[in-house]
Amino acid sequence: MKIEAVDFFYLAMPEITTEADGSQDALLVRVAGGGHVGWGECEASPLVSIAAFVTPMSHGVCRPVADSVLGKPLDNAEDIGRIAADVEYNSMDLLQAAHTFSGVEMALWDLLGKATGEPVWRLLGYSASHRKTPYASVLFGDTPQETLERARTARRNGFTAAKFGWGPIGRGSVADDADQFSAAREGLDKNGILLVDVGQIFIEDVEAAAARLPALEAAGALWLEEPFQGGALDAYGALARRSGKVKLAGGEAAHNIHMARHLIDFGGVGYVQIDCGRIGGIAPAKKVADYAVKKGVTYVNHTFTSHLALSASLQPYAGLADHRICEYPAAPKPLAWEFTASHLERDGNGEIAAPDAPGLGIEISPEGVRKYLREAEIKVDGRVIYATPRL
Amino acid sequence: MKIEAVDFFYLAMPEITTEADGSQDALLVRVAGGGHVGWGECEASPLVSIAAFVTPMSHGVCRPVADSVLGKPLDNAEDIGRIAADVEYNSMDLLQAAHTFSGVEMALWDLLGKATGEPVWRLLGYSASHRKTPYASVLFGDTPQETLERARTARRNGFTAAKFGWGPIGRGSVADDADQFSAAREGLDKNGILLVDVGQIFIEDVEAAAARLPALEAAGALWLEEPFQGGALDAYGALARRSGKVKLAGGEAAHNIHMARHLIDFGGVGYVQIDCGRIGGIAPAKKVADYAVKKGVTYVNHTFTSHLALSASLQPYAGLADHRICEYPAAPKPLAWEFTASHLERDGNGEIAAPDAPGLGIEISPEGVRKYLREAEIKVDGRVIYATPRL
Repeated sequence: MKIEAVDFFYLAMPEITTEADGSQDALLVRVAGGGHVGWGECEASPLVSIAAFVTPMSHGVCRPVADSVLGKPLDNAEDIGRIAADVEYNSMDLLQAAHTFSGVEMALWDLLGKATGEPVWRLLGYSASHRKTPYASVLFGDTPQETLERARTARRNGFTAAKFGWGPIGRGSVADDADQFSAAREGLDKNGILLVDVGQIFIEDVEAAAARLPALEAAGALWLEEPFQGGALDAYGALARRSGKVKLAGGEAAHNIHMARHLIDFGGVGYVQIDCGRIGGIAPAKKVADYAVKKGVTYVNHTFTSHLALSASLQPYAGLADHRICEYPAAPKPLAWEFTASHLERDGNGEIAAPDAPGLGIEISPEGVRKYLREAEIKVDGRVIYATPRL
Repeated sequence: MKIEAVDFFYLAMPEITTEADGSQDALLVRVAGGGHVGWGECEASPLVSIAAFVTPMSHGVCRPVADSVLGKPLDNAEDIGRIAADVEYNSMDLLQAAHTFSGVEMALWDLLGKATGEPVWRLLGYSASHRKTPYASVLFGDTPQETLERARTARRNGFTAAKFGWGPIGRGSVADDADQFSAAREGLDKNGILLVDVGQIFIEDVEAAAARLPALEAAGALWLEEPFQGGALDAYGALARRSGKVKLAGGEAAHNIHMARHLIDFGGVGYVQIDCGRIGGIAPAKKVADYAVKKGVTYVNHTFTSHLALSASLQPYAGLADHRICEYPAAPKPLAWEFTASHLERDGNGEIAAPDAPGLGIEISPEGVRKYLREAEIKVDGRVIYATPRL
């Protein structure tokens, strides 16, 4: 088949706040070809990512993403790889291209899976989709008491693992942060898996991050996530050499395979976290998973949004039985829940798995999409190059 | 003063081709405050970069660049650093932000220089602006004969150094490429400085790149530029260990300081090439120059567009007397020449220097801007969030 159409749907909550909650808006991608339709999602700024698909060309290697996708053949996994290589070369000077293409690539896999009747994980070469232990991904409360309550809620909702992120951590004293970590531990009970995400707050200040290690170890945190800017490999490496039982985790900002590999090789992370909505889609994430296996590092998905993104993010490591932890958006905004008609519900053991169904195995809800759809339009020299498409 | 307004002007040639010539369009940035005006230029996709400035917020760390710039105080260099840090944090999930902010940051320096009556290089801490040896930056011809003629033209135009880039290199045989290299050498004469840029053509294939080394050495090429993707540090490092007299050069794709440092530390480049229109502006480029000095690597600007971009790109290493080579857009499209009213002309020795004048020392030509200005408009939910501003 040929890729006949690529359409972008910009969804948003009526009000967007400054909290670090990426489920407040979404960029849904629909790809059509051969009588089938595939869906994907960019974990990225919707409007800017749309612009990178439709913009006029600047020069030979600053072309819109559309140029490498529309009208191209799609009959097997190699075709997706060929399109990805074209995007990488033809759009090398277009920084946003990786974020834009991530959602498109996901949709291409969904389309190919539907056309062939195979789940994506099988198209990737896996023979089984192993069950994963989801952790609830929540934000630290403003106070330790709030954090304690959120941890209790997570446990009450059947989560044996929870990740606390952002909030006041790193903005006050080391003792303040220690109170937060121990509140999270208390709420999870002593057997719960506790993960901590500090959202790059220490920029590249190794000492400031290291000062939090004793409290993290005392609280039994399994990992410390994103202490520094995504590219601060030296800082990661220096902290990793001192972090003892608490392993470093990072990688969500990786917008190409190189960045993820460098975090492993030079940054010394113990957990590499990949967002398929940013790294260029499912295939590059699978390559990172292969590399992680080779290097003795554990692969984890990064997913804070919808169950479409969740299914996509499970595919790259669905066949890795030993890489069990998975991020699960425990309290997304209604938008992220409502625009899919199906969800990856946890089973009796509280576990989930990439669906054994064609493509990504997730149905879109047209009502859910319509409810949050924003109207956007981009015009150049009087010509409309983007308008919100019909569902 | 306060930053009162930031305006973007999207310029383009009437026809854009697929040649790797980044001067076919331009994104000019005007910043106003305290009765002064500063100008900068993004070396990036104009429309996508504009979108990153004006887009609605997605969440707390995926905010439009505007949020960290408009209305902020600007009285000294530290203020620019503070704004840059805010952009980096508040827009960490907005990939295009670095490209957008690059032109804004340049304009902030120009504005600050005009307000204080100082050239930017002095605000950066340099006491002199040393003269540089410009190399003509041209593309390889389709045939060795064409390349020979372009080399002769460069020499006839008074250039003692020339860089040949892109074209057929890496697409045919090793022998074909050798013919091109030797044609360039012949045209430059035996004393000319020959530089070769292959535009990432080998992706991360070390052997394919290494196969060209003997011919490059025979032609006396000083450097081999961008053999691989910007992030392919392993490939860079492996080739650097085998490259002998021909040093590796790279860095133009760096959109943060980390990337440039990693090319030095892990990629083993001998020349680090920074585009102020991509790395986040002038201050991060200066930090790379400081790091290059410390590591015994030579700093070079990357500039293929206007003389506004050229002046900006000279500032970060204006005071480094030993870092003499500079890229000089020898044959830009008329647009890039015409939108500035002043230019950095070469002196009797064929040399140039960052101007000893307030700010960047380059005047904008309103007629030149108007001639190439494109009308663009971005609307969300019926509200116009960008329209081409008045000059």
